[in-house]
Amino acid sequence: MSMLSRSRRLRETPFTEGVEREGVKAYTVYNRMLLATVFESVEADYRHLKEHVQVWDVSCERQVELKGPDASELMRRLTPRNLDKMQDDQCYYVPIVDETGGMLNDPVAIKHSDDRWWISIADSDLLFWVKGLALGAGLDVNVFEPDVSPLAIQGPKADELMARVFGDEVRDIRFFRYKRLLFQGTSFVVARSGYSKQGGYEVYVEGGTCGMPLWNALFEAGADLNVRPGCPNLIERIESGLLSYGNDMTMENTPMECGLGKFCNPTEDSDHTGLAAMKREKESGPVQQIRAISISGDAVKPPTAAWPLMKDGMKVGQVTSAAWSPDFKTNVAIGMVDAKYWDAGMQLTVETSEGIRSAVVQQSFWN
Amino acid sequence: MSMLSRSRRLRETPFTEGVEREGVKAYTVYNRMLLATVFESVEADYRHLKEHVQVWDVSCERQVELKGPDASELMRRLTPRNLDKMQDDQCYYVPIVDETGGMLNDPVAIKHSDDRWWISIADSDLLFWVKGLALGAGLDVNVFEPDVSPLAIQGPKADELMARVFGDEVRDIRFFRYKRLLFQGTSFVVARSGYSKQGGYEVYVEGGTCGMPLWNALFEAGADLNVRPGCPNLIERIESGLLSYGNDMTMENTPMECGLGKFCNPTEDSDHTGLAAMKREKESGPVQQIRAISISGDAVKPPTAAWPLMKDGMKVGQVTSAAWSPDFKTNVAIGMVDAKYWDAGMQLTVETSEGIRSAVVQQSFWN
Repeated sequence: MSMLSRSRRLRETPFTEGVEREGVKAYTVYNRMLLATVFESVEADYRHLKEHVQVWDVSCERQVELKGPDASELMRRLTPRNLDKMQDDQCYYVPIVDETGGMLNDPVAIKHSDDRWWISIADSDLLFWVKGLALGAGLDVNVFEPDVSPLAIQGPKADELMARVFGDEVRDIRFFRYKRLLFQGTSFVVARSGYSKQGGYEVYVEGGTCGMPLWNALFEAGADLNVRPGCPNLIERIESGLLSYGNDMTMENTPMECGLGKFCNPTEDSDHTGLAAMKREKESGPVQQIRAISISGDAVKPPTAAWPLMKDGMKVGQVTSAAWSPDFKTNVAIGMVDAKYWDAGMQLTVETSEGIRSAVVQQSFWN
Repeated sequence: MSMLSRSRRLRETPFTEGVEREGVKAYTVYNRMLLATVFESVEADYRHLKEHVQVWDVSCERQVELKGPDASELMRRLTPRNLDKMQDDQCYYVPIVDETGGMLNDPVAIKHSDDRWWISIADSDLLFWVKGLALGAGLDVNVFEPDVSPLAIQGPKADELMARVFGDEVRDIRFFRYKRLLFQGTSFVVARSGYSKQGGYEVYVEGGTCGMPLWNALFEAGADLNVRPGCPNLIERIESGLLSYGNDMTMENTPMECGLGKFCNPTEDSDHTGLAAMKREKESGPVQQIRAISISGDAVKPPTAAWPLMKDGMKVGQVTSAAWSPDFKTNVAIGMVDAKYWDAGMQLTVETSEGIRSAVVQQSFWN
């Protein structure tokens, strides 16, 4: 870890007061905003997340709002995913690609109506791409970053905690669907989603004033549920195969390389950006793809740069995220592996920052 | 200060090895890349910068390359600045605005030729805007982030140090001009520029392999000049009125609000984005503008969020950067002030995180 100098440019959130009061130990910077990474310890936070319920300040999942008559048309140009059957209460994971098929972001789109969408972004200024594209294409749509800060409630007791604060109606929300529910007289988008596989919700908090009242209400209501502050957990997300844009994939990678081919099903008449590049790749198949990888030996120190994956002295890929899994008693990792070497069971070596280890390509992620 | 969790997403640079070896004490994150903020202490680094020479890893000033027949046409659409007389060895500070006149970035453009430009960016993904705009407008130009990492050599002894490494030719480079000069047989763009007013250069290091050899050569050649590692210095940049995108201005602000009106002189036939919005603002004048502000009392702790500027109980602006200046024996600050209150000598109060102080609008910055 290093020291972080704070400044206005690394934006605080409506919940920063609560995060600091609860003893955050470290941050990362995500979309130029503070995102907690550790409270007790990465391992203790992991154990707690899998057994209880946590409140996560994920305000850094900034929104790009598309508002106007051409909002849906613009959405269709942005993503290869077929949106035709998407309903007004649905959330879709939508890879966004440029004209070469390279990934610019892997956000979740929230459909309010045909003329209003939010895109809940990963760590890149997708706003600039959407604005530039809309302007260049002369579409009648307003594109901006609204004042919305998501708060995630994650873990096996999330249903119980959320029901206590938002009412039993939350239990009826289906996966990647949302309802508008009231908290202290104000209505919020509450979705069954989140960056863990332990179950839970994301509340899209509009404006700053409701932030701390909602934070406090969740902690008060959940005292007997052992509610704690939390954050996306490195170990749990690797076990679960949840990719991190900027870590596991960049603009250099295509959705197919990221194993996101199932989200690339454009309509017959699609004119989304990157269509031609994507068609070429579909014919030839991707040359590399993301795989779950186990790394032998005792706990590795998570990588701060890509670790080369080697076979017979040749580089055949790279590991981009790795951590010791207490539950699976191995180092779990995410890597990009060349086609000839990506089959499950393939024995490779990985050049970690602390030396060479053996590594094995897995059939699937752990969770 | 807080702790920073490192990951691949917060990119290391070709010089990170040197920065860490020299004992960096803290980082910020800029364009998803590590940028040092402190070596000895902010005050000691400041004193040294003003008297000797420093080597700064500013790789985070990523480049956006425009290459192709329409590169200059795209540049003209991007900025309100008149580029007609710009020569092939010049660097221009070019505000980039969206269709509402809001600033997306305040980079330095480097002209290689009519069909090849670099834009050396502040902290936002300008690449996405430029790509989106080029695609939308159907321009024949390739837009990408090349593998270029600027290294700045700043301070009064920068000429001497650079002459020892690149030859006496560097002394002839005029302000905001560049030459291609050799280091160990490789040619680099060397510009007389940098994010301080203590004089110096920026070397645009192409590729990673020359990074540490150049870093080491500068430290070896400068031992008797008291060369040290450094970084943009909070105190010096405020004294000098060097604005920081994300701190002192955001998308919410126009170039005129930022005092950058002199860089907004489009040609008669310009069709740059934001022209209409900018014309409206020129007629009415900006409603607020950036000012140098002194804050009374002993040293303030630099702000991590905007501090309200007040007059008679009413908010009339905000302070976004502030630090104690050892040379001017006052807290120097940068703020945005409403038109009625921006005249030099205006007495205001500022709500710092540690209490209310008196503040005075200055005629000009300190340096």
